[in-house]
Amino acid sequence: MASVVITGGSGFLGTRLARVLLSEGELRLAGGEVEPVSQATLMDRVPAAGDLAADPRVAVVSGDLADVVGPGGQGRRALAEADLVFHLAAAVSAECEADFDLGMRANLQATQALLQACRELGRFPVLVFASSLAVFGRSDDHPLPDVIDDETLPNPQSSYGTQKFICEQLLADFTRKGFLRGRAVRLLTVSVRPGKPNAAASGFLSGIIREPLAGQRATCPVDPGTEVALVSPRKAIDALLRAATSSDRSWGGPTAVTLPALTMTVAEMVAALERVAGPQVSSLIDWVPDPQIARIVTSWPARVRAGRAIRLGLTPDEDFDSVIRMHISETGSAPGTVPPRH
Amino acid sequence: MASVVITGGSGFLGTRLARVLLSEGELRLAGGEVEPVSQATLMDRVPAAGDLAADPRVAVVSGDLADVVGPGGQGRRALAEADLVFHLAAAVSAECEADFDLGMRANLQATQALLQACRELGRFPVLVFASSLAVFGRSDDHPLPDVIDDETLPNPQSSYGTQKFICEQLLADFTRKGFLRGRAVRLLTVSVRPGKPNAAASGFLSGIIREPLAGQRATCPVDPGTEVALVSPRKAIDALLRAATSSDRSWGGPTAVTLPALTMTVAEMVAALERVAGPQVSSLIDWVPDPQIARIVTSWPARVRAGRAIRLGLTPDEDFDSVIRMHISETGSAPGTVPPRH
Repeated sequence: MASVVITGGSGFLGTRLARVLLSEGELRLAGGEVEPVSQATLMDRVPAAGDLAADPRVAVVSGDLADVVGPGGQGRRALAEADLVFHLAAAVSAECEADFDLGMRANLQATQALLQACRELGRFPVLVFASSLAVFGRSDDHPLPDVIDDETLPNPQSSYGTQKFICEQLLADFTRKGFLRGRAVRLLTVSVRPGKPNAAASGFLSGIIREPLAGQRATCPVDPGTEVALVSPRKAIDALLRAATSSDRSWGGPTAVTLPALTMTVAEMVAALERVAGPQVSSLIDWVPDPQIARIVTSWPARVRAGRAIRLGLTPDEDFDSVIRMHISETGSAPGTVPPRH
Repeated sequence: MASVVITGGSGFLGTRLARVLLSEGELRLAGGEVEPVSQATLMDRVPAAGDLAADPRVAVVSGDLADVVGPGGQGRRALAEADLVFHLAAAVSAECEADFDLGMRANLQATQALLQACRELGRFPVLVFASSLAVFGRSDDHPLPDVIDDETLPNPQSSYGTQKFICEQLLADFTRKGFLRGRAVRLLTVSVRPGKPNAAASGFLSGIIREPLAGQRATCPVDPGTEVALVSPRKAIDALLRAATSSDRSWGGPTAVTLPALTMTVAEMVAALERVAGPQVSSLIDWVPDPQIARIVTSWPARVRAGRAIRLGLTPDEDFDSVIRMHISETGSAPGTVPPRH
């Protein structure tokens, strides 16, 4: 029997992850025996998806993470029983840049509270932490290599990236001390992310696909030549599950694993949209530069030599056309004209 | 007029730094005009040295750092007037390894409180942070290069090193956001450190020199062939002052600067002691392996390519014989026989 906690369990990735876990119904935790998923506790400030809330295996804990996992919090019991914790809850990049205190509270303090709760409760769960490529940053006084790898020194250029990197370090030390078994996965920009726009600086990298496919105009705030590192929702979930199911030995240590990237320019993304959905869809993009967003996004690396992830069997998406088609088929987006799939 | 705060102002480095600042009496802060040192506030849990407490320019604030700089704390006024803060207060490596909560409180939370106080008080002081080579670590799953440099990925293998590295990241982000002007200096093992033994894992690297010179036996817990990276007290103070006085441009960004090292084996240190003070002194060392201490010390790098520090004009100590002689002359240690100095 495996009991799972998902923080940010009502978010896009948390919801998708919960659905996959519950539909598969079993899990080989950290390379051990295959066990049924007996309970999934979703912790979030906002309500869980209806299908999940209706599942008898699902419990929902509502509130700020630091409160619900802190002393006396209503999430303590679930955590005390958890074999596996996915820590996905976070404030996103642009909102942390606009509101420094929010980021420190939602990303750093909440993570500290979660780690401390795991330590106090003494079950030593596997804790999969969704870190981010935003730990890396290029700046005037510190250029990044063109291709980053597992040994590249992060130099975060946003408070969000700094907070994620600090949480990686805390997770590694809690792991080294034996308080839990941490696995940090650096997600790339997930595209195409379904749903409503959010306050991530990278949000437009889904918006410029998702909104036109829904017949709405979208704004691209960066130059078409901007290179970005993408991962599809499916590959992002694959990576989180690989982190949970790998043995300690194959995972290879408490430092973070950066995912393999599909590297594209924004212009190439739009060309893929045009191929898949036609020019009347891709023409719904307005190019309106936003220096604040551009500064954050262009500080991130776009090319990744993801040695450790590749050794774990993780692969990048093969092409963006298929990613767009996956989004259409999953969300029922109905573009004006979808050419036949070859 | 320059007003200075020193946290850990009663410690060995804090005391030495205060004496240098007050005897020089003036300071070129961050490459600006030369200004007289009008006030030095020493913050520490333990009383300040008598000569410092008697100086009319010195104020002493006693208590835990997080308390004295927190809301309503008695250190707030000094911080509100400070042009320059040296943040040296810390719990040391072996005590943080033995007491995880102590390290999190004394190193991480206290530093967060200090940074937050600087931000709230709005004077944007230059804040020189004493970080440590202990941010680096070799482990079975993550070897270190033989020679580390400014681009080497830290991989701390102690809670102390983790906390120092996290504070470097916070300092860099507070600097990027314009809340203060942070300069992080990664000190090496300071030897010969005068005074009583402390709970640093590296403490023996002073003890095996200091105690025999005082006619007392000392214990060396590591293999004689262990290589270590050393800096003398004088060079360590030079580096902290260089951090305070460099212009933003010459300092070169908010990431930490690793000091140039005098790299030696412990056997070579003992040979130097024998050359300077005679075999009857160096024979006072007992070789008693301590795996806990050895694990921490051998996880640190010993060889440093300190490009940024060298460009700042910082240099390693030339040889350890002179460092021992400096210690003897400063502390009045009277070894049985000191050969003539050539």
